Amino acid sequence: MTSTADRTGLISSVETRLREVGRVVRNSMLDAMPDGDPVQWLYGPMREYPARPGKALRPALCMSSGRAFGGSADDLLGVAVAIELLHNAFLVHDDIADGSEMRRGRPTLAAEHGVAAALNAGDGLAVVAGQVLRRATRRLDRDLAELVWGEFDTMALRTLEGQATEAGWQLDEIVDLGPEDYLNLIMHKTCWYTTIHPLRVGAIIATGGQAELSALVRFGFHFGAAFQIRDDLLNLIGDEAMYGKEILGDLYEGKRTLTLVHLMATATGSDRDFVRDYLRLHRAERSEDMVRTIRALMDDYDCINFTSEFAEGILLTAEDYFEEAFADAHAGPDLDFLRSLVPYVWARWR
Amino acid sequence: MTSTADRTGLISSVETRLREVGRVVRNSMLDAMPDGDPVQWLYGPMREYPARPGKALRPALCMSSGRAFGGSADDLLGVAVAIELLHNAFLVHDDIADGSEMRRGRPTLAAEHGVAAALNAGDGLAVVAGQVLRRATRRLDRDLAELVWGEFDTMALRTLEGQATEAGWQLDEIVDLGPEDYLNLIMHKTCWYTTIHPLRVGAIIATGGQAELSALVRFGFHFGAAFQIRDDLLNLIGDEAMYGKEILGDLYEGKRTLTLVHLMATATGSDRDFVRDYLRLHRAERSEDMVRTIRALMDDYDCINFTSEFAEGILLTAEDYFEEAFADAHAGPDLDFLRSLVPYVWARWR
Repeated sequence: MTSTADRTGLISSVETRLREVGRVVRNSMLDAMPDGDPVQWLYGPMREYPARPGKALRPALCMSSGRAFGGSADDLLGVAVAIELLHNAFLVHDDIADGSEMRRGRPTLAAEHGVAAALNAGDGLAVVAGQVLRRATRRLDRDLAELVWGEFDTMALRTLEGQATEAGWQLDEIVDLGPEDYLNLIMHKTCWYTTIHPLRVGAIIATGGQAELSALVRFGFHFGAAFQIRDDLLNLIGDEAMYGKEILGDLYEGKRTLTLVHLMATATGSDRDFVRDYLRLHRAERSEDMVRTIRALMDDYDCINFTSEFAEGILLTAEDYFEEAFADAHAGPDLDFLRSLVPYVWARWR
Repeated sequence: MTSTADRTGLISSVETRLREVGRVVRNSMLDAMPDGDPVQWLYGPMREYPARPGKALRPALCMSSGRAFGGSADDLLGVAVAIELLHNAFLVHDDIADGSEMRRGRPTLAAEHGVAAALNAGDGLAVVAGQVLRRATRRLDRDLAELVWGEFDTMALRTLEGQATEAGWQLDEIVDLGPEDYLNLIMHKTCWYTTIHPLRVGAIIATGGQAELSALVRFGFHFGAAFQIRDDLLNLIGDEAMYGKEILGDLYEGKRTLTLVHLMATATGSDRDFVRDYLRLHRAERSEDMVRTIRALMDDYDCINFTSEFAEGILLTAEDYFEEAFADAHAGPDLDFLRSLVPYVWARWR
């Protein structure tokens, strides 16, 4: 990535493809939604997040990985839609747990309809994800279908383990954490369901379960970690309108991001005390002034640069693992798309 | 039911069987729980409700219905365990939505571990329920397995529809409701997953999907409605230690029970205004004095008797439907147990 023109071209080609997949998957998600009552208190709220355009990274990874390994779009689409529906179910519940107010540029379900309706809507989305996956796996040989279901169960549990750990760190005021704790957290909370699972399940369906999966885990972990770190950074340095969530929302929550973990580990004297005291407060007790101070300390202790450099190192490793993970895949637009994702995250960084 | 001795014998024989099923199912639920980390923030909380002895009515209905129609215990147990696990998942999320403090005689998960941990634990229990059901349906012919899964999806959506409606009535301060609205609510919220689904799915497995299901729906609805009305009544007139939840908790919540619906429909003048004003308050604004006043108005307007008589009428209908629903079932202890449930609810009433 040397020239601005290359960079613009890369971003545009990746995002065009993501938008195409997003449109197809969004329509399929909405088509899968039950047509019953109560619309006002259940089925209406259930449609809201799926109707708001998201990144569609997960279904795009599943479709491209599967096709690169020789799978058919017909076998893959339903599984990709199920992944995105489950992702939406997680988002709805996450937003309750975090007390978030904005999601994809609009109020969260809990902010708009109350906690009870949001809870039920999240549960409902998980049920519909299961229905879609069941229809999709009916096309497959029974043993292969079981393998795919096993992947989904593992992914769901990994994700919950990560979310539970993150919430536990906040609740129990855990402050002595290093980068390795953060990486272990996002391996569970983000990478498994955002990158590793979609890549694996696509490959499994395409190869009848014969694909070598451990290299996909290595690539998916490094790519997914860089993706999550970038997302966390955007919350610190991004633009609210583009980002779609509250800027600095993670600081209000006390979310242990790599940047905050680095600040906790490097701040000294009264700065250190300030950070520790801050993390012991409840969300409602954290004032805008305090949040601004924490944000300024992150500059003082060079935490933003640390985070960027850390992530760039991970992305370089991801690039190496990519060739290993897709050594048996077919050349073509799907493999090209997957390969371009690493420099894409890099390009979006700057 | 004429003599006290008969009544005591009936209660004791039903409860002995429920305890037996409960013990087996409880052990199976705990065995199915993943053995991973974090114990403290996810897998520990997930074990709590399954480890607290519950009524075990749902798995007992599934096992007995299946065996009465000629099914084998081996084919039925996993499905019964999955039903109970999903029930526990619902309870965890319900207790968050309702802001409840006690469940089965101990603090709710949200009260003990916070909302985020309870949310994740409920999601995790639903995932484990799916894993158990998947193992159980692997024994079955693939079409029959699909039929069973379809039943589970329908049951889960019906339950969510009911829960969402109940929460919506409270949130939007809906007060103009009649008994038919209440019955429609509990058909969704309670009967489908408490009685109709376990009875149907047991019969489906036993008969390879050939059982006549509509008569089971009619029996299950009437029996389940009486069961729910009794449960609501216990919250008004019961003993806290025996009941395991806060007495009058439903009044604090403003839960639209049949008794409250009747009070809303029959109270006049300033009593009517008091009830309507009360229902417009948030839970935290409802004082003990107000709750006591509502409870006293229920006596003044004879609402407890109305509720009892209403439910006794439903139980008589359930008794008629029982014979129709189980006309093709085999005589024996399973059929005897199912038949004794109607007078059991009746006997527990008095």
